[in-house]
Amino acid sequence: MSDLFWPGDERAGEFMSEPALLQAMVRVEAAWLAALTGSGIAPVGAADSLADLVRDEDAPAVAAAAEAGANPVIALLPLLRDRLRERNVTAATWLHRGLTSQDVLDTALIVCARDAVDQLRAELHGQIVTLAGLADKHRASVMAGRTLTQHAVPITFGLKAATWLQGVLDSADGLDSVAVELPSQFGGAAGTLAGPVQLATLAGLDDPARQAAELVRHAAATLGLPARAPWHTSRSPITDLGDALVRCTDAWGRLAGDVLTLSRPEIGELAEPAADGRGSSSAMPHKVNPVLAVLIRRAALAAPAAGAQLHLAAACAHDERPDGAWHLEWPTLRELIRHALVAASQAGELLAGLRVNTGRMRATAESAAQDLLAESRALAGLFAAAGPGSGASATGTAGYLGANELIIDAILERAASHLKEDR
Amino acid sequence: MSDLFWPGDERAGEFMSEPALLQAMVRVEAAWLAALTGSGIAPVGAADSLADLVRDEDAPAVAAAAEAGANPVIALLPLLRDRLRERNVTAATWLHRGLTSQDVLDTALIVCARDAVDQLRAELHGQIVTLAGLADKHRASVMAGRTLTQHAVPITFGLKAATWLQGVLDSADGLDSVAVELPSQFGGAAGTLAGPVQLATLAGLDDPARQAAELVRHAAATLGLPARAPWHTSRSPITDLGDALVRCTDAWGRLAGDVLTLSRPEIGELAEPAADGRGSSSAMPHKVNPVLAVLIRRAALAAPAAGAQLHLAAACAHDERPDGAWHLEWPTLRELIRHALVAASQAGELLAGLRVNTGRMRATAESAAQDLLAESRALAGLFAAAGPGSGASATGTAGYLGANELIIDAILERAASHLKEDR
Amino acid sequence: MSDLFWPGDERAGEFMSEPALLQAMVRVEAAWLAALTGSGIAPVGAADSLADLVRDEDAPAVAAAAEAGANPVIALLPLLRDRLRERNVTAATWLHRGLTSQDVLDTALIVCARDAVDQLRAELHGQIVTLAGLADKHRASVMAGRTLTQHAVPITFGLKAATWLQGVLDSADGLDSVAVELPSQFGGAAGTLAGPVQLATLAGLDDPARQAAELVRHAAATLGLPARAPWHTSRSPITDLGDALVRCTDAWGRLAGDVLTLSRPEIGELAEPAADGRGSSSAMPHKVNPVLAVLIRRAALAAPAAGAQLHLAAACAHDERPDGAWHLEWPTLRELIRHALVAASQAGELLAGLRVNTGRMRATAESAAQDLLAESRALAGLFAAAGPGSGASATGTAGYLGANELIIDAILERAASHLKEDR
Amino acid sequence: MSDLFWPGDERAGEFMSEPALLQAMVRVEAAWLAALTGSGIAPVGAADSLADLVRDEDAPAVAAAAEAGANPVIALLPLLRDRLRERNVTAATWLHRGLTSQDVLDTALIVCARDAVDQLRAELHGQIVTLAGLADKHRASVMAGRTLTQHAVPITFGLKAATWLQGVLDSADGLDSVAVELPSQFGGAAGTLAGPVQLATLAGLDDPARQAAELVRHAAATLGLPARAPWHTSRSPITDLGDALVRCTDAWGRLAGDVLTLSRPEIGELAEPAADGRGSSSAMPHKVNPVLAVLIRRAALAAPAAGAQLHLAAACAHDERPDGAWHLEWPTLRELIRHALVAASQAGELLAGLRVNTGRMRATAESAAQDLLAESRALAGLFAAAGPGSGASATGTAGYLGANELIIDAILERAASHLKEDR
Repeated sequence: MSDLFWPGDERAGEFMSEPALLQAMVRVEAAWLAALTGSGIAPVGAADSLADLVRDEDAPAVAAAAEAGANPVIALLPLLRDRLRERNVTAATWLHRGLTSQDVLDTALIVCARDAVDQLRAELHGQIVTLAGLADKHRASVMAGRTLTQHAVPITFGLKAATWLQGVLDSADGLDSVAVELPSQFGGAAGTLAGPVQLATLAGLDDPARQAAELVRHAAATLGLPARAPWHTSRSPITDLGDALVRCTDAWGRLAGDVLTLSRPEIGELAEPAADGRGSSSAMPHKVNPVLAVLIRRAALAAPAAGAQLHLAAACAHDERPDGAWHLEWPTLRELIRHALVAASQAGELLAGLRVNTGRMRATAESAAQDLLAESRALAGLFAAAGPGSGASATGTAGYLGANELIIDAILERAASHLKEDR
Repeated sequence: MSDLFWPGDERAGEFMSEPALLQAMVRVEAAWLAALTGSGIAPVGAADSLADLVRDEDAPAVAAAAEAGANPVIALLPLLRDRLRERNVTAATWLHRGLTSQDVLDTALIVCARDAVDQLRAELHGQIVTLAGLADKHRASVMAGRTLTQHAVPITFGLKAATWLQGVLDSADGLDSVAVELPSQFGGAAGTLAGPVQLATLAGLDDPARQAAELVRHAAATLGLPARAPWHTSRSPITDLGDALVRCTDAWGRLAGDVLTLSRPEIGELAEPAADGRGSSSAMPHKVNPVLAVLIRRAALAAPAAGAQLHLAAACAHDERPDGAWHLEWPTLRELIRHALVAASQAGELLAGLRVNTGRMRATAESAAQDLLAESRALAGLFAAAGPGSGASATGTAGYLGANELIIDAILERAASHLKEDR
Repeated sequence: MSDLFWPGDERAGEFMSEPALLQAMVRVEAAWLAALTGSGIAPVGAADSLADLVRDEDAPAVAAAAEAGANPVIALLPLLRDRLRERNVTAATWLHRGLTSQDVLDTALIVCARDAVDQLRAELHGQIVTLAGLADKHRASVMAGRTLTQHAVPITFGLKAATWLQGVLDSADGLDSVAVELPSQFGGAAGTLAGPVQLATLAGLDDPARQAAELVRHAAATLGLPARAPWHTSRSPITDLGDALVRCTDAWGRLAGDVLTLSRPEIGELAEPAADGRGSSSAMPHKVNPVLAVLIRRAALAAPAAGAQLHLAAACAHDERPDGAWHLEWPTLRELIRHALVAASQAGELLAGLRVNTGRMRATAESAAQDLLAESRALAGLFAAAGPGSGASATGTAGYLGANELIIDAILERAASHLKEDR
Repeated sequence: MSDLFWPGDERAGEFMSEPALLQAMVRVEAAWLAALTGSGIAPVGAADSLADLVRDEDAPAVAAAAEAGANPVIALLPLLRDRLRERNVTAATWLHRGLTSQDVLDTALIVCARDAVDQLRAELHGQIVTLAGLADKHRASVMAGRTLTQHAVPITFGLKAATWLQGVLDSADGLDSVAVELPSQFGGAAGTLAGPVQLATLAGLDDPARQAAELVRHAAATLGLPARAPWHTSRSPITDLGDALVRCTDAWGRLAGDVLTLSRPEIGELAEPAADGRGSSSAMPHKVNPVLAVLIRRAALAAPAAGAQLHLAAACAHDERPDGAWHLEWPTLRELIRHALVAASQAGELLAGLRVNTGRMRATAESAAQDLLAESRALAGLFAAAGPGSGASATGTAGYLGANELIIDAILERAASHLKEDR
């Protein structure tokens, strides 16, 4: 998707596009129909993959019809049934039987989200490799540490990259956990599976409740999703996903903020990768703006509020299906995933091509050495007080790097372990 | 626009669509070009309306190219210049001279927003008429007042409608104020108008700074917008607009919430207007869901966070153009305006066709009269204590309505005065 | 109030402290009691100023008792009545008659908020004077303009101060509007004034509804607040106040962000006012951190979400008194006002003592002149193309300041006009 | 803590009070001092527990002094050193050596938060027991299922309690994960441990970097916290905690919302536990408001925004210590934890004493049976079409409960497993 209001949006791919949602809804209906026929509830003739019934071009019509039922599933069903009837009346009759629209929409959104999460995990994998390389390569590239905007003590760029990596690893761990837990949703009209149980009963099957549970497992397995007790109004799967996504944009926002500061011309220690035409201005021919970092920062400022909206929706998930809170989730989740995907791709490109000016780093650190070593002198004074010559401050910024190597190594080890598990 | 993730979105019209933004950007460039030629800075041959240069179908290509400059204006200009060059080389040369991309994008968004605000004001006008009618018609329709979910003292439905009206009038007043103040943005690369001033200087005009100011007024007047000192980093125009929009959704959210409660089957005092197929369920044939109120509530839950994002962007509007905060405004403002437009239309329809079950209201009030008159008895006790027979509680819920009429009249008067000014 | 979690909080004064709220609630009850006796509804003997009945030390006990009724008014009343009974049984009997707890709490919060708003207006007045001085003094202090973190075209520090002033003026205008509209709240149990009307009826007064309205006007006038139709569930007065406060923190956040960037050692164009011990570090003896700007930025990041919470509460103000949304407003409004008061004071001090290093500004601008004049050269090229020698770029950064003077003058004029009205 | 603006706040205990934070900061300094002396870096004479040096009454003075350094640690140190000097000059000299204020404040907040989290886990344990009891006891208590406010299909109150339990279990799982990961923070001035390493060097210890790491482990172990690579600017520990807390309030908000709806007089299926004086009104003697649910809902509306603020702070954690974002975390985390603690206690009490009117549930379900069985009839029609008598709809609401038992059992099994691990 490209979006005039959202530069870079095509990086988000089609994971959360309207056609993707449309096709995912059809896949959910197909998985359920397969479960109904597979179990013997629906006649064998009801089997139909639903393939090719709906085209991407149908999205606007379904969307336009969605208001009447306040969700797109109710609008999709007549279209599906009408077209299906032409080739398989039995399938048309059995379509969606025992489901409620929330089953289909929740599961379809999860299907779309899962693919997006996989893409994000791949992006994170690449960033971990890149950042581990930067942390290792620059473990001796001394630069000024800065706290509350002012020079503090020396650090290395390797250490900074390692702390970026720490955030990215936290994000990756979070997404890994979420990825395996994204559940299907099958609960029927009010989360009791009453419809499926009645269908099993009417079909004369033994232990109809177990049959209904089996239907759920069958359909979930078809979609490659774990089953879960109906969660129509227990929205942790959605808020967990949202929180994990925001954790990603937090990590990227933080590193983008560092790039923005350190690529100011007066500092000049980092620069974005050059690309033809990138960073240009409509008025000033000399300009090379750090557009990747700018757009990542945009996402990082936007995402926390989206995550909060998902929690608000969860807190207002009343009755057996809520009166607006559920409806708030869909566009919110879409935007949050888009922000994450775009920022992931931009952060990956930014990091892969990041230009590190170690000379400028060193020069600034050296010219600020008096300040950067003030703490060192103060500590040396402690021992000096114990007797002449017993204490000495660091003699240069490179001599006051503390456990720089150890900390970098610890984070690199964590990265290596993550990458190994990821294979 | 229809949107599968957003039932009812087509009610938002095209005010904030990508084509609308695209055309608005072209209009801004055209207004500036006209100002340049009108002032004698650009040669007469540079005059060109830019009409027909860009088609709606160009939006995706411009959007795709927008990332390189982190905004769509930088992507639009080469396309405009290339096409313009074929019919008017001079115009192509003078296009955008003296502007910066923020000038064009801010003004274009304001152009789009202004049209949306006008639409909203028209919707509010209609709602005020409707609500005034409901308040007047039902000034004697007694119902239970409810506080913290429990029966309190009697009210009338007319009074409830009047308090809804109060919120809608507050919203309308807010939008009226904002509407006349939405400014154009013309400041040049860093808000100094240096480009326009240099152009005037090079053109040999007297008092070039005044000429630049004159250019701004000319272009603003062409677009029907007031001029204002450059506000690249003073974002009150955007946050004021945002706040006014959220005030609208607050008002609608509150009345939708009342409708949702009062249309529960156990209460049954209100019902949404019926429409063919509206409110149906995918599973339960008997269902008539209050979908308008549900979707309005969705907007009311969504809008406050969007308003806050605009403030966050304003608070982070650093330097002479910020590094991400500005970029956050565009999609946020779009979504907020869409929410407002959709909810406005839905609220209008909901109110216009609202079904008021006065019988049910009366019956509930009567059956709860013992509770609804508890305060009355307590107050009567005060006077009773002063002597036998000196105090008496209300003898029925209709006898304990307080200043119901006066309050309704006061709000109706305010409505009448608003409608008179609005003509 | 000082607060270990909130450095600088003592700058907020006591406007929103628990004792202030407690005393304000008593003042509201007293104003109502005076209205009841003044109107002849309550006997003359019921007159009592309620002075000295409640001490600040009572706050914890009232707070602890507040949960039972879900608000502090219900907890305050028995305490007031018990103490009053000892000196004036009649007053104890008539206390609070005709009111509901929301009347007292809403009005008390408004009383506290109004005082805070007046304090903020005074702070803003001072900042306008300071900023006008800075803008005028530095209208020729050339510095690099920066967009998307990179050098753009030259500006002056006077212009930057003028754009800060623009934001502060917008904030002041907003608060001025809000200040005169903060209303009292008197509506009785469900907003009908049924209690007051019944009291007037029982007292044998003519036109009891008018008498009730008169009571409201009387009590409001005693408190110096405008009356308004009951707004128990039409919360614009609260959201308007919140929005105006956030507009303030936006303006301060933006200028604090500029100070933070420009006081980085590599840029060094601005510095916070020095104060003994301020900006020190627990580890690094050389440190002088820009703590005022840091803490202002904290407020600016915090305030938008608080404003949004007030809107969310407004959107959920259902029934005749809502079930949680109202209760969310009190601490939110307190925190927002505290943030605004602290940031106001810090911004005032920051601006009053801001150290402007014009030499550093000039030096940076000169060394970056090639870039800062790139636009100028491009525009000159336009005319040069028309013939030899016909175009010329600016010969120095001071020569490319555009309408710097005009824009500063326009904003100073607005400031002067504001200050004149403010007297 | 009691709080006039926050009814019920005393339920939060003292976990996040100013004295608690003060004492926690002292504990962190003491743990570090013990590590310094234990390692042989500081002389044996520097050992001091710091006990009794600071009293709760010192909090205001420390708070008032905190602005100068923008955090309370910088204000605490002179006070600690002055008092310590009187009894142990050596300890005063070695206090805080090698640390930065963020180390102390972050770790102190974690110490306070951990205790609060343990309290929350205990509350959740109790709720799980209660809810499991309700789910089991009411597995046959038929009631109307409601979706989008309207009657849907039958459910049981046991199933509703089970879905509440599902949310509470998700919350408990989340808190369990967070509880074991809340880390100490020891990184020194810019996260390099340069100070500790220099101290070890000056003390003549072998492998000073390892010694520094050992110091960190020692101090962390003293506090009972896991060590972690410095996370000054990688704020996942804070955002993970925040997200886990919001997940709790989501779960309670959802069940409180159900209680609020179902305790409306027109529905009357649930009621809060009665308590003397609870739920009373200042005006209406008959009132029994559901104040626990009202106040829980307040927390649920408030918490998501607080969680988002923590993410915003994480996304803006720039440089080696950020310029405002860090400072935003402290009061935000305090409020979020208070909300969670208060709501936890209220939810526990609400659930433990919840009054379930199964008669009213059954009566409503029976009177609405025609609607509640509409889906059943539609499904029966499917089979009926296959031949006369082959399909039959449910004959009563109790006959259309689907997999009610199975779903309840599955969730009860999860609860049992959770409780077993929890022992």
